[in-house]
Amino acid sequence: MHDIRVGAGDVFKRQLELASQNYELLQERGVRAFNVMGAIGSGKTLLILRMAERLKERGVRVGAIAGDVAGDDDYQRFVAAGLLAANLNTGDDCHLDAHRVGHALEGFPLGDVDVLFIENVGNLVCPADFPLGTEGDLVVISVTEGDDMVRKHPKIFAQTDVVAVNKVDLASFIGVDPGRLVADYRRLNPHGRVVLTDARSGRGADELLAALGL
Amino acid sequence: MHDIRVGAGDVFKRQLELASQNYELLQERGVRAFNVMGAIGSGKTLLILRMAERLKERGVRVGAIAGDVAGDDDYQRFVAAGLLAANLNTGDDCHLDAHRVGHALEGFPLGDVDVLFIENVGNLVCPADFPLGTEGDLVVISVTEGDDMVRKHPKIFAQTDVVAVNKVDLASFIGVDPGRLVADYRRLNPHGRVVLTDARSGRGADELLAALGL
Repeated sequence: MHDIRVGAGDVFKRQLELASQNYELLQERGVRAFNVMGAIGSGKTLLILRMAERLKERGVRVGAIAGDVAGDDDYQRFVAAGLLAANLNTGDDCHLDAHRVGHALEGFPLGDVDVLFIENVGNLVCPADFPLGTEGDLVVISVTEGDDMVRKHPKIFAQTDVVAVNKVDLASFIGVDPGRLVADYRRLNPHGRVVLTDARSGRGADELLAALGL
Repeated sequence: MHDIRVGAGDVFKRQLELASQNYELLQERGVRAFNVMGAIGSGKTLLILRMAERLKERGVRVGAIAGDVAGDDDYQRFVAAGLLAANLNTGDDCHLDAHRVGHALEGFPLGDVDVLFIENVGNLVCPADFPLGTEGDLVVISVTEGDDMVRKHPKIFAQTDVVAVNKVDLASFIGVDPGRLVADYRRLNPHGRVVLTDARSGRGADELLAALGL
């Protein structure tokens, strides 16, 4: 459901209020939360798992909320990896919003985690409009999405300060130049940080954590 | 802009009316149009180009409308390949709709094409709700999106009767089983047709045309 512009201003104002409430709740409970966005198959789930492994080694307790239109595949992967996790299905909606996340936080054992990754629904358009109240945002892109994909989605990249360019091990195989993605991102967001990652091997996970301030 | 449910029923009714108008216009002008959907980087553009090559060899005149949030990369690729093409930017919207497509059709040289591919914005959630008035729909998925991606998007697969599973040459390399994608699709849509394709090499393009009745 979308594209109905009646009263849009009020709706977005309400979303900002709800995001602020989430932010305050997370601060109060000492949880550092991150909104992980990216297209379908960009590798969000596996990258979160790789970061969680590193954090666990340091004694940091990690939780995850899996956002998807339908199904619980990602949630099951978080659980199988031993993370405290929640599943959040949006039905027809193409993004998480602060209201849905707020309800998920109410039911989450926040006292048992230090870091919470919130994996958004897989697309690069809609999540850009809906702040969740997290401390930081991360966009994961895969080189398999083509080297023009940053330019096609200027909004989300202009407003997101950490980007992972994932599956870099496939880049030469499929003839995509990660440098072009990085250059396009730097033009849109000169202050942003971009990290080349390969979630399968774990490459770049430590640098990504550092970029997120973790 | 989305997620504002006031009056949604009326809006969707209006979309259906506009889609019917597009359908009638295309019928009148003898143009067979197809709504090509799929995630970012699934290979929609290259697959359209491969099908267009085949059709051209048969003397069929092909046109394309490139739908994207921003930019004209896909449009430029269509033009470079010698297709009659139009570019359609949606701004903040995550999908094409019948209204926008109707305006694009008004300006399109319909008398000079027999087949028109309308490439939707790259995501698998929103386009499912917006019929464009085409004769047929095609969803392109890439094996790089992971073997759980059909189950994550039941709606669009249940309602789309032709699916291309693209980039199959990468499947074994990245450890994804295309058979699982096919099986999930068959469960959701027992009457649908699924074709394994590799747009880079052109594999499957003829079978895909046959599945679309072309």
